[in-house]
Amino acid sequence: MNITGKAAPTVTDCLVNGVPASLVSVRDRGLAYGDGLFETIQVRRGTSPLSDYHFRRLARGAQVLRLPLDLTLIRSEIEQLAKQIGDGLIKLTITRGESLRGYAMPPQPELTRILQSSPLPAYSPQHAEQGIRLYPCMTRLGNQPLLAGIKHLNRLEQVLARSEWQGAAYAEGLVCDLAGNPIEGTMSNLFVRLDDCWLTPALDQCGVRGVMRDFLVENLDGMGEGVVQRTISRDELLRSAEVFCCNSVFGVWPVVALEDRQWSVGPHTRVIQTLAKQVLS
Amino acid sequence: MNITGKAAPTVTDCLVNGVPASLVSVRDRGLAYGDGLFETIQVRRGTSPLSDYHFRRLARGAQVLRLPLDLTLIRSEIEQLAKQIGDGLIKLTITRGESLRGYAMPPQPELTRILQSSPLPAYSPQHAEQGIRLYPCMTRLGNQPLLAGIKHLNRLEQVLARSEWQGAAYAEGLVCDLAGNPIEGTMSNLFVRLDDCWLTPALDQCGVRGVMRDFLVENLDGMGEGVVQRTISRDELLRSAEVFCCNSVFGVWPVVALEDRQWSVGPHTRVIQTLAKQVLS
Repeated sequence: MNITGKAAPTVTDCLVNGVPASLVSVRDRGLAYGDGLFETIQVRRGTSPLSDYHFRRLARGAQVLRLPLDLTLIRSEIEQLAKQIGDGLIKLTITRGESLRGYAMPPQPELTRILQSSPLPAYSPQHAEQGIRLYPCMTRLGNQPLLAGIKHLNRLEQVLARSEWQGAAYAEGLVCDLAGNPIEGTMSNLFVRLDDCWLTPALDQCGVRGVMRDFLVENLDGMGEGVVQRTISRDELLRSAEVFCCNSVFGVWPVVALEDRQWSVGPHTRVIQTLAKQVLS
Repeated sequence: MNITGKAAPTVTDCLVNGVPASLVSVRDRGLAYGDGLFETIQVRRGTSPLSDYHFRRLARGAQVLRLPLDLTLIRSEIEQLAKQIGDGLIKLTITRGESLRGYAMPPQPELTRILQSSPLPAYSPQHAEQGIRLYPCMTRLGNQPLLAGIKHLNRLEQVLARSEWQGAAYAEGLVCDLAGNPIEGTMSNLFVRLDDCWLTPALDQCGVRGVMRDFLVENLDGMGEGVVQRTISRDELLRSAEVFCCNSVFGVWPVVALEDRQWSVGPHTRVIQTLAKQVLS
């Protein structure tokens, strides 16, 4: 039992600054202000195939937040933990550490580094095979170009969007910006096939640049099929021939329904799904 | 020493769910997503004069975030702690408690309730007497009407704005919205005197509705001097006759400089400063 009176995870589930632990200080700026970053990394047979993409995003976020990361240390800790768990997820959280009251950054922050491991999530294989229905979230993503794209700890928008539906009828929700343009899922990115071309929403005003999105954009480009990143209207989404959601944990889920609109799982989505499966397995 | 290797505050400095403690679970959603609210409450001679305003904002925030608060319990804990400390600050943090990985809210959350007390901050009395210089922050507040006005734990914008200057030359920074309109200080609200009328920026797109701002708007209204809440342009701020910043800890600081523009401390600001002093002391 920890101090909040709930069962603590076993200590091997979590490392705080390299030491088995399940608690952080109430003065941690991650708790006070969401002053930090996180990554959720899939591990298969002791390695994380997309780790380069995760560390690239982490470094980008650290630059924006001016967090002095020791990437070599983080990388080596994650590699070691990945070997120990074999298959599972590693959630890495980095915060600016403890400070006194007030927003000012400590001049020499001692970052807090949290590694939590958990089993692979048990998503229904039907999501990938037969596709999913998207819940149309009313929660809008605000505009904040400074923080767009990075995976910081200020995630109230995702929490509120994800709270709009319960139950298994929808595996993911569609989240739009203030203008009503589709941006992403609550935990995934969105690709749409329009006029024989793959599009994905530009994430320069809001949204999270997912690791699988980066991987697919890079690899489709290498296959001579560039993905256009731009504003996509709701109308374009509804007119599109194929739609899918992706992230680095579940890979690619074809979208087969959004409100009245229905799609069948298209051949181009299947090609990309195979690409994602190959890198994740 | 706590698990992160730093000196822990003495247990009487902090209560977690009513129990002396200085740690929270790594699974707390406050840490994971900034999924919660906070209030910083000034205590003088065992009472907090603006507590009604704090609890009103807390209740408003809890409604937006759908946090099932026990306000009676929170209030009684704060009143008890206020009596114990006499003079000081109480920082209340409420999070949605622990959950497994993922944005979905636990159906029956057990909120985490953190009370931290600290001495009154040692601001120079010159700030109130002679006025302050405002640092012109480049960090912009994003637009997010859903979260505007409440004091949630997603505060990266304030952290980044406050990090733009160091040292004592500036006691506060001016933060604008994406359009460049002045909105607030990093830790305070802004009032400007224009054409014999008090204005304060509308906070329906971004910004935090400070407790002292609410108090002043209400009380000036009661004195027959309504405060207009609307968009204020940078040009209007620079043309204004008087400017001040306010919060519930320091009261009212007249602004005497922003970049090339200089003001003297005006008589209308002094009236309001007295009003704030009376309620805070």
